[in-house]
Amino acid sequence: MPEDTLPELKNDRFLRALQRQPVDMTPVWMMRQAGRYLPEYRETRAKAGDFMSLCKNAELACEVTLQPLERYDLDAAILFSDILTIPDAMGLGLYFETGEGPKFKKTVRSAADVEALIQPDVSVDLDYVMNAVKTIRSALGGRVPLIGFSGSPWTLATYMVEGGSSKDFRILKRMMYQEPEVLHALLDKLADCVINYLNEQIRCGAQAVQIFDTWGGALSTPSYQAFSLQYMEKIVAGLIKEHEGRAVPSIVFTKNGAQWIEKIANIGADCVGLDWTVEIGDIRERVGGKVALQGNMDPSALYGSESSIRQEVKRVLDSYGDGDGHVFNLGHGIHLDVPPENAKIFVDAVHELSAR
Amino acid sequence: MPEDTLPELKNDRFLRALQRQPVDMTPVWMMRQAGRYLPEYRETRAKAGDFMSLCKNAELACEVTLQPLERYDLDAAILFSDILTIPDAMGLGLYFETGEGPKFKKTVRSAADVEALIQPDVSVDLDYVMNAVKTIRSALGGRVPLIGFSGSPWTLATYMVEGGSSKDFRILKRMMYQEPEVLHALLDKLADCVINYLNEQIRCGAQAVQIFDTWGGALSTPSYQAFSLQYMEKIVAGLIKEHEGRAVPSIVFTKNGAQWIEKIANIGADCVGLDWTVEIGDIRERVGGKVALQGNMDPSALYGSESSIRQEVKRVLDSYGDGDGHVFNLGHGIHLDVPPENAKIFVDAVHELSAR
Repeated sequence: MPEDTLPELKNDRFLRALQRQPVDMTPVWMMRQAGRYLPEYRETRAKAGDFMSLCKNAELACEVTLQPLERYDLDAAILFSDILTIPDAMGLGLYFETGEGPKFKKTVRSAADVEALIQPDVSVDLDYVMNAVKTIRSALGGRVPLIGFSGSPWTLATYMVEGGSSKDFRILKRMMYQEPEVLHALLDKLADCVINYLNEQIRCGAQAVQIFDTWGGALSTPSYQAFSLQYMEKIVAGLIKEHEGRAVPSIVFTKNGAQWIEKIANIGADCVGLDWTVEIGDIRERVGGKVALQGNMDPSALYGSESSIRQEVKRVLDSYGDGDGHVFNLGHGIHLDVPPENAKIFVDAVHELSAR
Repeated sequence: MPEDTLPELKNDRFLRALQRQPVDMTPVWMMRQAGRYLPEYRETRAKAGDFMSLCKNAELACEVTLQPLERYDLDAAILFSDILTIPDAMGLGLYFETGEGPKFKKTVRSAADVEALIQPDVSVDLDYVMNAVKTIRSALGGRVPLIGFSGSPWTLATYMVEGGSSKDFRILKRMMYQEPEVLHALLDKLADCVINYLNEQIRCGAQAVQIFDTWGGALSTPSYQAFSLQYMEKIVAGLIKEHEGRAVPSIVFTKNGAQWIEKIANIGADCVGLDWTVEIGDIRERVGGKVALQGNMDPSALYGSESSIRQEVKRVLDSYGDGDGHVFNLGHGIHLDVPPENAKIFVDAVHELSAR
């Protein structure tokens, strides 16, 4: 997509906040904003058939990506896709069982299994993701920036080793304590792939990228450093920093990871995501302006009344305090049973209560 | 049980450490030390039939409580029971479905439901727990102290409102944001019951008590304070502080709660439990000797080799540093698939590597 055909970005509040530049009001988006809580999403998904068919159809993936922007005054769109596209492209055979979450036909449990993993050619093997990025970027017409994303190596490894979702990652942790070198080989392979994957998303039109480390918080401090953070640092170092004449900011988000905030803030990412279990103001003090912060309202607060939602937005804004570098978000994905009108109250409240 | 019939306590390392008094070596016990990882436990459990029948049979509950003490040089025994005895006694009808975890026949979803809850007479309605405490205490013969325990009001409420285990407590959180006064009424009723329950355990022979707040870490900071910590503070204030001429120390443990350590250390408990996601040395610095600390090795570290287990024990001991006030433990219950011999390596390593 040659630069000169791209429409100018009309709302750069999100990108500016990620770089701690002044904004007229705090930008806001919601993790999982394109999702099951929206009736129009459920309709499109029904058209597509199963979940992966929706991810693999660029037109439909674009449709659901834009749906929340029609309803709410959001400051960013996020690529509609799954975090497990990479392991699938590596040959593990991703599938979904109703009510069971993601599963893999093959698992990775030995050095030979790691060796056998295909290193995908992301522009070919994951072309459906790149097509979705291009289609969405074009359909956005410069309205708001598009966020690309990937799972972190550790988080991807949890599914690849366990064979699906897990409560306490026993098989993976056994590998970590018994054969750390096998796990390191897997994580390193994944880190290389994530770099290629995110950079290709950037080349196709993603204007910021987020690394989701959903399960890093299950680790001890030294293990987090060695098995999760180290590989995210490698990824951030390998990312394209500028594209289309503009910085491409990066966000890292370890759920339940704020105890390591000083270390996370140090890996070179522009922004660190926070879940809702910490005070964003305390965290801001600890990182001392080194990175922007994204978060951190309890997604369950959207179950409340208009006044309680507004109150919770105000509390988080007040906790962050004056100055720039805050991207408002929920501390985790929006729940599927939140009334859509409550998300509108939330988004509007962020803008209204933060207007400079 | 009149005092003069009780044998003297032969090993008071655990009780001393809880009160930050000098010890010859760091005391150690394991959460869920009486459990499925032990073949002898599985045998006793098979004899008993289902899980609750095991809890309700004082002789068998005593048998499984003592089993790990036969194998390992542990410094405390913990009452074998379930955290959901209280909601069961309140009339909710606890049952277990294979592979599904605990369930309740009735749930608590409204002010009327809270009103309808029976306030149990703990010495009558929970006599099977008290019988187990007396039987175990007598069988211990002063070998090591006996820990009594209860779930925290918030943690009990998660099961009572959701009707069983839950991933993100959506029904409960909806209540919290929509009808906080209903939830407060429930938590207050639970706190009163927990006080009676733990005090009766103490009168029957428990020499220390632990409050398990397994799910407090799912809350935001203000919600944790209002809906979990406040009620644990009420409980601690209501506990019998001395019995049989000896202090009865209390431990509070909020999993994923160390971000609130200063607040938790302030509620009057003698000791705060830590999961494995934080550095015990950092936490010790933050609480400045106000409480003893219990923890905090990753339970998955027991999957490792002898040398890696010993190394991890040493790392945690070094992190805590010199001085007293440390009770060694895993950061969560021992996994059911840990080889029993690895638990022995663990317990012995704590004593050997911490000997003063």
